[in-house]
Amino acid sequence: MTKITANEFSGATFRPQQFIRAERLGSKVNVDQLNLFVESSPENAKLTRDLITQVTMDPVLKTGSEYYELDKSQHREATALKIAKMASYMEQDIQMAFKKYRNHDVVKSLQTDSEFPILTAKDLSIFDKRLSIISNQDPQLGTRIGVHLGLFGNCIRGNGTDEQIRYWLQEKGALFLKGIYGCFAMTELGHGSNVAQLQTRAEFDSETDSFKINTPDLPATKWWIGGAAHTATHATVYARLIVDKKDYGVKTFVVPLRDPTTFQLLPGVFIGDIGAKMGRDGIDNGWIQFQNVVIPHEYMLSRFTRVINSGGSLRVETEPTLDQISGYSALLNGRVNMVMDSFRFGSKFATIAIRYAVGRQQFAPDNDKTGKASEVQLMNYPLHQYRVLPHLAVVYLISPAAFQLMSTYHSTLDALYKASSSGDKRQLQSVSLKLKDLFIDSASLKATNTWLVATVIDELRQACGGHGYSAYNGFGKGYNDWVVQCTWEGDNSILSLTSARSILKKFTDLAQGKVQKSESFRYLDPQSVMDILKGSKTAKLESMNDYFEVWGIMLVKMLHHCVNLVKQTKSTDSISKHLLLISRFHAFHSMLRVFSLKLQSSADSHVQDENSRELLWKLYRLFSVYFIDKYSGEFQQFKVFTPDQISKLVQPQLIGLLPEVRKECIALTDAFKLPDAMLNAPIGYYDGDIYNNYYNEVIKNNPPEPDGPGKPAYHGLLRTMLERGFQGVENLEKLGS
Amino acid sequence: MTKITANEFSGATFRPQQFIRAERLGSKVNVDQLNLFVESSPENAKLTRDLITQVTMDPVLKTGSEYYELDKSQHREATALKIAKMASYMEQDIQMAFKKYRNHDVVKSLQTDSEFPILTAKDLSIFDKRLSIISNQDPQLGTRIGVHLGLFGNCIRGNGTDEQIRYWLQEKGALFLKGIYGCFAMTELGHGSNVAQLQTRAEFDSETDSFKINTPDLPATKWWIGGAAHTATHATVYARLIVDKKDYGVKTFVVPLRDPTTFQLLPGVFIGDIGAKMGRDGIDNGWIQFQNVVIPHEYMLSRFTRVINSGGSLRVETEPTLDQISGYSALLNGRVNMVMDSFRFGSKFATIAIRYAVGRQQFAPDNDKTGKASEVQLMNYPLHQYRVLPHLAVVYLISPAAFQLMSTYHSTLDALYKASSSGDKRQLQSVSLKLKDLFIDSASLKATNTWLVATVIDELRQACGGHGYSAYNGFGKGYNDWVVQCTWEGDNSILSLTSARSILKKFTDLAQGKVQKSESFRYLDPQSVMDILKGSKTAKLESMNDYFEVWGIMLVKMLHHCVNLVKQTKSTDSISKHLLLISRFHAFHSMLRVFSLKLQSSADSHVQDENSRELLWKLYRLFSVYFIDKYSGEFQQFKVFTPDQISKLVQPQLIGLLPEVRKECIALTDAFKLPDAMLNAPIGYYDGDIYNNYYNEVIKNNPPEPDGPGKPAYHGLLRTMLERGFQGVENLEKLGS
Repeated sequence: MTKITANEFSGATFRPQQFIRAERLGSKVNVDQLNLFVESSPENAKLTRDLITQVTMDPVLKTGSEYYELDKSQHREATALKIAKMASYMEQDIQMAFKKYRNHDVVKSLQTDSEFPILTAKDLSIFDKRLSIISNQDPQLGTRIGVHLGLFGNCIRGNGTDEQIRYWLQEKGALFLKGIYGCFAMTELGHGSNVAQLQTRAEFDSETDSFKINTPDLPATKWWIGGAAHTATHATVYARLIVDKKDYGVKTFVVPLRDPTTFQLLPGVFIGDIGAKMGRDGIDNGWIQFQNVVIPHEYMLSRFTRVINSGGSLRVETEPTLDQISGYSALLNGRVNMVMDSFRFGSKFATIAIRYAVGRQQFAPDNDKTGKASEVQLMNYPLHQYRVLPHLAVVYLISPAAFQLMSTYHSTLDALYKASSSGDKRQLQSVSLKLKDLFIDSASLKATNTWLVATVIDELRQACGGHGYSAYNGFGKGYNDWVVQCTWEGDNSILSLTSARSILKKFTDLAQGKVQKSESFRYLDPQSVMDILKGSKTAKLESMNDYFEVWGIMLVKMLHHCVNLVKQTKSTDSISKHLLLISRFHAFHSMLRVFSLKLQSSADSHVQDENSRELLWKLYRLFSVYFIDKYSGEFQQFKVFTPDQISKLVQPQLIGLLPEVRKECIALTDAFKLPDAMLNAPIGYYDGDIYNNYYNEVIKNNPPEPDGPGKPAYHGLLRTMLERGFQGVENLEKLGS
Repeated sequence: MTKITANEFSGATFRPQQFIRAERLGSKVNVDQLNLFVESSPENAKLTRDLITQVTMDPVLKTGSEYYELDKSQHREATALKIAKMASYMEQDIQMAFKKYRNHDVVKSLQTDSEFPILTAKDLSIFDKRLSIISNQDPQLGTRIGVHLGLFGNCIRGNGTDEQIRYWLQEKGALFLKGIYGCFAMTELGHGSNVAQLQTRAEFDSETDSFKINTPDLPATKWWIGGAAHTATHATVYARLIVDKKDYGVKTFVVPLRDPTTFQLLPGVFIGDIGAKMGRDGIDNGWIQFQNVVIPHEYMLSRFTRVINSGGSLRVETEPTLDQISGYSALLNGRVNMVMDSFRFGSKFATIAIRYAVGRQQFAPDNDKTGKASEVQLMNYPLHQYRVLPHLAVVYLISPAAFQLMSTYHSTLDALYKASSSGDKRQLQSVSLKLKDLFIDSASLKATNTWLVATVIDELRQACGGHGYSAYNGFGKGYNDWVVQCTWEGDNSILSLTSARSILKKFTDLAQGKVQKSESFRYLDPQSVMDILKGSKTAKLESMNDYFEVWGIMLVKMLHHCVNLVKQTKSTDSISKHLLLISRFHAFHSMLRVFSLKLQSSADSHVQDENSRELLWKLYRLFSVYFIDKYSGEFQQFKVFTPDQISKLVQPQLIGLLPEVRKECIALTDAFKLPDAMLNAPIGYYDGDIYNNYYNEVIKNNPPEPDGPGKPAYHGLLRTMLERGFQGVENLEKLGS
């Protein structure tokens, strides 16, 4: 094997580094301010950078190209090792949050001192962010911890009494990745989205004051349970509460699975490995069957539903509204996080594909008659700009929406805990309305953005040609790891339908004079709706606000069309396809609105530099017109734009914006400030030395074969085939048949 | 571990088998005739079935769920073993084709007897079909043989003299997978699509009458070469022909790489492994660098370009038109095959997802107030029908086009060989025109259908929810293996642009009175074009022909728009996005036209049963209206349909067809006649016993851990983490800081 580097040759065909360097020299924008914009604040930006540095440099946590070579069992073990390392970081993060680093072991107090204040979400915010950052580098690690803290932990927080929360999460140590490790046993082999029909049974036995957990048939097997195959000592189990043979519907129970010391399964618990998956092989998804597994009465999570067993008389008390909401709230956290993941994961692949497109050359210019002109940079082709740059705009548009959703989530959940602790009916009423809007927004943003980023990864991989198919450039594992986000914790189609039905309900409620107060539904302002339907308010693309308002006009017209269609056909069959789009357009409207509000304020946006602001406005417009064009079928069908407006207004703006954004595409990706170690894809490294970087990673991971370079271990098999003699049937006569 | 089967329980939640059985009982169509339709003829259908039986039962070739557990090196070796087995089948297939099975070793004669007739494509047609069938089961195996026979072999056939063809392919044994194994060294690290700019050099040395092959710099490294890392003994190398320092452009050369006996690399040849990829890990893609590798003059493939070295005087003779065409013809075979692959691969995933959707239940009906109604079959939801059934229509529409393209390919290539052997100028002229049309059609069909099937697999996986993400249900590896078809042997975007530019050229040629004779371009009939542009011919959806003609109208209007746009903007920048669609719409037009022609004739279609014909017409209409709706933006923008026609004509037809096709969806998938062993995805098996089948495959592949069920080898690591003590900093005072 030899190594010829491009630099050794004076007549080298390509020098991609020079192109990338030239873009940086020619840039007129402020990369630091762009970074503040996408990271939401200077404090956040600094924290992000510090955490990125730590997770990419830590000898256990860092992830190089060898990551793409690991098999399933190696991924599983490497992930477990990383979890243990993350546990150490967590204790430090909590110490720092309490500002009691010195002279006080905060975790010890939280676990052992019942007078010590209870841990809040805020105290865990640094670690949450650390987890979000490392998920961008190693998604399966993020999930495997997230199942324990986010799903198991939030199931207990959302459904447990204060005592249960303190017991499981602090005393037992779950919140600190100590003592016990949890999994979230909701999904069954036969039931995913339809939680209310789960079949696992938890039957109350009043004599022993305990529950028996049972799996009644094969489809009721808990399935896909992350952490179950190897790690979890406990599960929060979704099971039907049966008291005196009466079925009270699905409630939540903590069920021990394994002895945390020996890791042997406990009596009546049967567990197996789900095995190989499309991606995220580092997660030990398993299946669980229960046969008369006994748990004490106290292991039922009883914040909103309680079984009262007083001297032989049994009764079930429940708080119906909140009971139902909180049952799903464990999934809310995941959905909110997935919108943030969409931003971070998208930014990674946008960086890789754009640096490659700037460095890569292909075909001489059309007007070159000499055959000597050097080949054109991929990024200079209009088609390539169209294939790549809108995805960059997508990533930029996700960020402000993700940060805002996160903040709404935290404030709403805080309000919920306060209201449910105080028991104040008015407060409960108000927080339950907020929670419903949060369900709609998080569902539509989760579904829309996880789908968008799946497309981003897929189309950007294709834009990198053959090299996008190499495992070492990250797209393959990235895509395989990513796409499950479209299915889990709320299937995207179901989430879209659910959120769109709620939006449709809000629309029909307008006729009853019910006014929407939430910012996300500003497009349902009664006056504005009337103006749109009467035709006095029409779509335009002049002021910056027009670019999000046009989506509001679209939504109103589509909702109106759906109402009519249901009236005419007496069935909702014909609108389900439209409902998917209503959810998506609601998300687009939110994203554009939040982005433009933020950018209008130089304090909020942290962008004072005029060129940078201008550029961000271009991304905003590009996002809007790209999707207007993509959904021009709907825009014309519902008469938001005429065919001529599509040809003369929308498409020329789209075609015109692409070369503008192209000028600063390297700055826009540099602004994500993702180090090479986070990208883990040599064709996208900062220095742009595409060919050497890529070649080196390939060489590093593929040393010469033991029998000699290029000589496979199974060469004997090949030789036997090639050297075989003639096999045909000859001269049968001599057999005298 | 226990196994609870659904059948053991009288109160079993689900019995998916019953649903599937009921569909079969209720079917009113003739599955056998539908099968004849997609397999094109009774002879073909029988051959397909025999070959499927053989490749799914052969102990070496068969592929079970353990396939999804193999790592890269296991895939490589298992694939090599299968190649050797395929080689045996091949000899038998050739014997049978020559009908000289008895008393004559045909392969021996072909290799050793120069008087024996030369092998034609027809003699290999059974094996070609066998390869196509097994590619549906194990795509990497198909490719690994396809690189040798299709790319290496066709490069020699397309560029070699008759003597060279006989020497390399027959005498040396390449065509029989004997003696030598070839790879196709076209792509370089720095050059993919732009073949004319490849940098590898082949310099002629008149003194030794030989060529020196060199890799001038790193980006000129041959890259992605399938078979190079482990298997290939020879390569057809694309390199710049340099004679007397003059560069004659890229030509083809046979270069030995390894000793076929020892598998050691030959002098000056440096080879490494490309390593891990997104999919198809069973292919040993490699990189090659040449340093002064010497090959004899005769190893240059010289059908159209020759270096004449007579007594010190050097001259290069070339046949310019055919030289260029034939240079690319090696790729043509692959493109044609990929359209057939699209049909076969698509049929597999359509079968899996549709059987699952019929067997799977989710949510009770909306009108159920009792909570006791059994849950609704997924397939009965209008949204699910919309998500799934158009993909079934896609698969059905691909088949007739694929068979027709294959037949055009063979007849055109035959004509080319005849014309180039005879040297008849008129024949050469005529065949070169046919070849150009074949380039357009194959490019647009390859790009369109490989993209469509990528979407088919992706969206059908999502339609199977979480279980679609399990490796054992095939979608993961299926997608990863598939998507490279969108990139290799002509990147889909480039192919689409190229074919659309040729179509645009044909359109502008009309003004010069040039008339298109090819059937594929019937929509460019001058009178019809004029009628469309004058507005006297408009789109409708009444007769069956309307459903393909509407795409012709669309194409004419779009081409006209592009011509105007280029005139106005003086640049082609604004049309590249439209060009992509022109290529796609051209493919849709062809597919619909070929399908309807076939179905109109009961002899051609082999469908006499009226219900079955009706059903096929419904699939045809569904395909057309589904894509009209999907591209309704263009249909309205270019005024083929008005917004109201979309709402009142197109969408109601779409919504109306779905429940019609749904009624026979099981029959339509049964008609592909794919045995379970070919599907290799338990949620899609014939008996519909989804949960037991799936559970059993998971159990089979995941036996209990050696230390006890559910106890991972790395449990010590987990225990250490969970049992760790307190780590915080306490009582620093005593250190007396």
